Amino acid sequence: MDVREKVKGILETIPNEFPRRSYVVELESAELTSMCPFTEIPDFYRVKIVYVPDEKLVELKSLKLYLQAFRNLRVIHETLLNIIFEDLKDLLSPKYLMVELKVNIRGGIETVVRREEGERPD
Amino acid sequence: MDVREKVKGILETIPNEFPRRSYVVELESAELTSMCPFTEIPDFYRVKIVYVPDEKLVELKSLKLYLQAFRNLRVIHETLLNIIFEDLKDLLSPKYLMVELKVNIRGGIETVVRREEGERPD
Amino acid sequence: MDVREKVKGILETIPNEFPRRSYVVELESAELTSMCPFTEIPDFYRVKIVYVPDEKLVELKSLKLYLQAFRNLRVIHETLLNIIFEDLKDLLSPKYLMVELKVNIRGGIETVVRREEGERPD
Amino acid sequence: MDVREKVKGILETIPNEFPRRSYVVELESAELTSMCPFTEIPDFYRVKIVYVPDEKLVELKSLKLYLQAFRNLRVIHETLLNIIFEDLKDLLSPKYLMVELKVNIRGGIETVVRREEGERPD
Amino acid sequence: MDVREKVKGILETIPNEFPRRSYVVELESAELTSMCPFTEIPDFYRVKIVYVPDEKLVELKSLKLYLQAFRNLRVIHETLLNIIFEDLKDLLSPKYLMVELKVNIRGGIETVVRREEGERPD
Amino acid sequence: MDVREKVKGILETIPNEFPRRSYVVELESAELTSMCPFTEIPDFYRVKIVYVPDEKLVELKSLKLYLQAFRNLRVIHETLLNIIFEDLKDLLSPKYLMVELKVNIRGGIETVVRREEGERPD
Amino acid sequence: MDVREKVKGILETIPNEFPRRSYVVELESAELTSMCPFTEIPDFYRVKIVYVPDEKLVELKSLKLYLQAFRNLRVIHETLLNIIFEDLKDLLSPKYLMVELKVNIRGGIETVVRREEGERPD
Amino acid sequence: MDVREKVKGILETIPNEFPRRSYVVELESAELTSMCPFTEIPDFYRVKIVYVPDEKLVELKSLKLYLQAFRNLRVIHETLLNIIFEDLKDLLSPKYLMVELKVNIRGGIETVVRREEGERPD
Amino acid sequence: MDVREKVKGILETIPNEFPRRSYVVELESAELTSMCPFTEIPDFYRVKIVYVPDEKLVELKSLKLYLQAFRNLRVIHETLLNIIFEDLKDLLSPKYLMVELKVNIRGGIETVVRREEGERPD
Amino acid sequence: MDVREKVKGILETIPNEFPRRSYVVELESAELTSMCPFTEIPDFYRVKIVYVPDEKLVELKSLKLYLQAFRNLRVIHETLLNIIFEDLKDLLSPKYLMVELKVNIRGGIETVVRREEGERPD
Repeated sequence: MDVREKVKGILETIPNEFPRRSYVVELESAELTSMCPFTEIPDFYRVKIVYVPDEKLVELKSLKLYLQAFRNLRVIHETLLNIIFEDLKDLLSPKYLMVELKVNIRGGIETVVRREEGERPD
Repeated sequence: MDVREKVKGILETIPNEFPRRSYVVELESAELTSMCPFTEIPDFYRVKIVYVPDEKLVELKSLKLYLQAFRNLRVIHETLLNIIFEDLKDLLSPKYLMVELKVNIRGGIETVVRREEGERPD
Repeated sequence: MDVREKVKGILETIPNEFPRRSYVVELESAELTSMCPFTEIPDFYRVKIVYVPDEKLVELKSLKLYLQAFRNLRVIHETLLNIIFEDLKDLLSPKYLMVELKVNIRGGIETVVRREEGERPD
Repeated sequence: MDVREKVKGILETIPNEFPRRSYVVELESAELTSMCPFTEIPDFYRVKIVYVPDEKLVELKSLKLYLQAFRNLRVIHETLLNIIFEDLKDLLSPKYLMVELKVNIRGGIETVVRREEGERPD
Repeated sequence: MDVREKVKGILETIPNEFPRRSYVVELESAELTSMCPFTEIPDFYRVKIVYVPDEKLVELKSLKLYLQAFRNLRVIHETLLNIIFEDLKDLLSPKYLMVELKVNIRGGIETVVRREEGERPD
Repeated sequence: MDVREKVKGILETIPNEFPRRSYVVELESAELTSMCPFTEIPDFYRVKIVYVPDEKLVELKSLKLYLQAFRNLRVIHETLLNIIFEDLKDLLSPKYLMVELKVNIRGGIETVVRREEGERPD
Repeated sequence: MDVREKVKGILETIPNEFPRRSYVVELESAELTSMCPFTEIPDFYRVKIVYVPDEKLVELKSLKLYLQAFRNLRVIHETLLNIIFEDLKDLLSPKYLMVELKVNIRGGIETVVRREEGERPD
Repeated sequence: MDVREKVKGILETIPNEFPRRSYVVELESAELTSMCPFTEIPDFYRVKIVYVPDEKLVELKSLKLYLQAFRNLRVIHETLLNIIFEDLKDLLSPKYLMVELKVNIRGGIETVVRREEGERPD
Repeated sequence: MDVREKVKGILETIPNEFPRRSYVVELESAELTSMCPFTEIPDFYRVKIVYVPDEKLVELKSLKLYLQAFRNLRVIHETLLNIIFEDLKDLLSPKYLMVELKVNIRGGIETVVRREEGERPD
Repeated sequence: MDVREKVKGILETIPNEFPRRSYVVELESAELTSMCPFTEIPDFYRVKIVYVPDEKLVELKSLKLYLQAFRNLRVIHETLLNIIFEDLKDLLSPKYLMVELKVNIRGGIETVVRREEGERPD
């Protein structure tokens, strides 16, 4: 999908000065929102990203712009989780990656979706 | 039991677009209530469902309607836990499933019942 | 409405042994639920009742049964607030009365409705 | 401004069945977002609305759609506060009205803006 | 009632060294329990006592023993509140007195009863 | 000890309809109190019971009465813990059992005692 | 003091579009730090600013830079409070102004200093 | 009492540079301890001091040493409250003064004593 | 050191009636204070002790007096931790022992020191 | 880098009196701030240090001065984490070391970076 490639292209990296040492980066934001493809109603998320960097770190300003780029896209929770996961995996080739989306309550139900890969550092 | 089959039939699925990747879905609701079979007094629950999907995801609106369908049924805590667990297991054949019911305090006692199957993702 | 009269009739009182002294009774419950008249979807409430008794106190077990009696009635928030308020006012003729309903979040909006009469004791 | 009239037009009312009794309605949502006119970066708000109704109540579904309509409009905090305040005042002619916007932290600063009119019911 | 006189007799005072200065004493305990006269089931209370002393202070160890003395007495909430209030009022003749009992949840209802006399110091 | 046998006899069971499935039951109460054998001063406990049932479940009303039966018995913390643990173990023959007593602060010291047997389900 | 004039000069305003309506602006930041003039040790503050605007609003980015400008200045708590208060008062001529500094704990003592002028809007 | 004069003499002041402006200073510490005169057991306090300065501010390091000086003195709660209150009143002649001692729980009872003089600034 | 032997001698035991069963005792107190050997300023600690008893239990009143005995001793954090740990180990020969000291914030730094031996029961 | 060597030189040690026993030291401070090298805007951190000492302990006052020395240095999050980690590792040769920096929210994103080495004591 063209739009998806364009969004992915927003992400930038900075080199990891300490690639041979294992350390963890945790990023969390309450400012991710997209559109439900069925109802065209906005969905609001709290997103958490945890990774162990290899050669590259994600540049934070580009991450902010990347998260904003989903604002008017139509996408369900599980798909959004996997898109963000795979974009970051492709970008960073991290030793470990976890992405979690916590969805605002809908119909009395709170939803959290979460995916991880690699050995958890904790 | 006919009523139970009818309630179970409310649940619907959507296909999991990422079946080969292991990720977790957590669902929580404070809007589950049923009737105590002995006293005919309503019981109030907080229900938590955690699963690792295989081919199918539970559709959220149908889950909401499914939980509402217990409103006037007479059922004890442990049975309700096992009904929800087995309905979701039959529906989703998930790689992992956990269901927990937290009962409102009665006679000064707080009760939680919980069942899980498969390897916990955390 | 006949049903409403019947529900109101559930409430019972016990005499206030200390009618000439001003004191406060606060009652709170998370176990009030009724049906939305438009969507036929259940509404869940946290109800708070505060009053300064005159000659009568509300009997607690009858209050519990009274709150349960709304379980399958169709009524909007504002109407439910005013019904409970007026039933208690008629029953107790209290020196002060406040009733508050806190509705479970719907469509991303949390709602609280509250009515009071008489001089607040705090 | 045409857009503003259109957004205002989304709001609907339902009649207040208890207009001669003074009671309070509180509404709160974490799902209000608009665009900063200078930076074109999204702003996220928690909005709180408190009013004492006269003849009319705001219909909740229309309020949800009204709040969603600001999603892609460019507007600063103080203006957004006053727009929502005046739209609701025109719509409801309430005996009391308060609107508060709590802005997500920016540049290390948390901002709250709040306006009220009429005699506070508490 | 003889038992009640005996319980009241447990309370002791110490002289207030600073009687002409207005200051506040707040006492709170989660260790008050008595028997319900109807069901013979124990009731558990959190008790709060606030007073502005005149000539006398309540001695704390005697207060602890006084609260323990209700352990096997049969008494309803409102009566217990008024007994403690009047025993302390008789004992201390304070410039201000407030007694509050917070009852453990019963039948899904939390109850608080509170009585005060004199000008509140806050 | 005769009294102890009598107390133990209060407990009743209900059959576990799902004995071949492993699930957890957690019970918690803030309404357990007994007498210190040395000082004759009451002790207040928060008790937590967690078990994985085999053939039997503890009936909740009988558990409430069982906990109330310690009200005027003289027993130290560690003994009370072990009595409750062994009574439940004898009653239920559970696959896993944990009992924890949290004692109200005494002499500036908070005490918790806890015993478990079998493989923890978490 | 020249430095102080320079710091004050960082602040900028934007016009208040709604000057005839009374509303409140609250600003809070955990990112204010200066140097203790006696020990040359850094002090850390949480600053809260509340005002009712007249003709002008403080521009937020300039406020951030203004707060940063104290980073290497030597100033005691009370003086810093009064400097910020008077700079904002001169800048905005607000209908109401409150400034509060909460100092990080030092020598086991937590300090808060607060100044306000005008009629509090709450 | 000589010891008391000596302890009082530890306190020092710094001049208030802004005596004509009304502002508030709040000081709080969890590090105040003294000896109970009856049991010779240590008492632990959380102390809160709020004042509106006139010509003088209390110097914080001297306040820390002053609070430490009670460490081995034998004094009951109410007396300690009034000593600290009067020492600060004599030292500062403030426009408003409040001193509050929150005592660690003893015999299941939490105690707070509080004294204030002058018009409260809030 | 003589003083240290004397302090250690305050501790007393009571026999463990259930020595063949593995259970846990947790003790926590916010009332431990000693003197810093360098600055002669008091240090305040929150102490937590967890152990699995073998033949003996620590008697709680003697533990309270033991903790009070450090009040005027000069000792650094790490030494105090190890003294308490070894005194309890010598006294109880427990199957597991953990001692943790949480020091009140100093110079903006919060310190926790913790030592354990044996297999942790959790 | 000369500056970096100078900062590192601030750290001092005290001998560990209990080197053969394994225990944990945790240190936490909200008073670490440095300058962003790109924007020259200050960054604020909460730093947590956990280590198992071998022969040496870090002296706390020198640690406070060491953390203050970063105040006007330009350094990104990941580099600051690794500098502190390696300075402490060189200084203490601990059996285990963990350093975590929690960065104040920026652009709606909260960041935590964390590095550890050796076997975690918990």
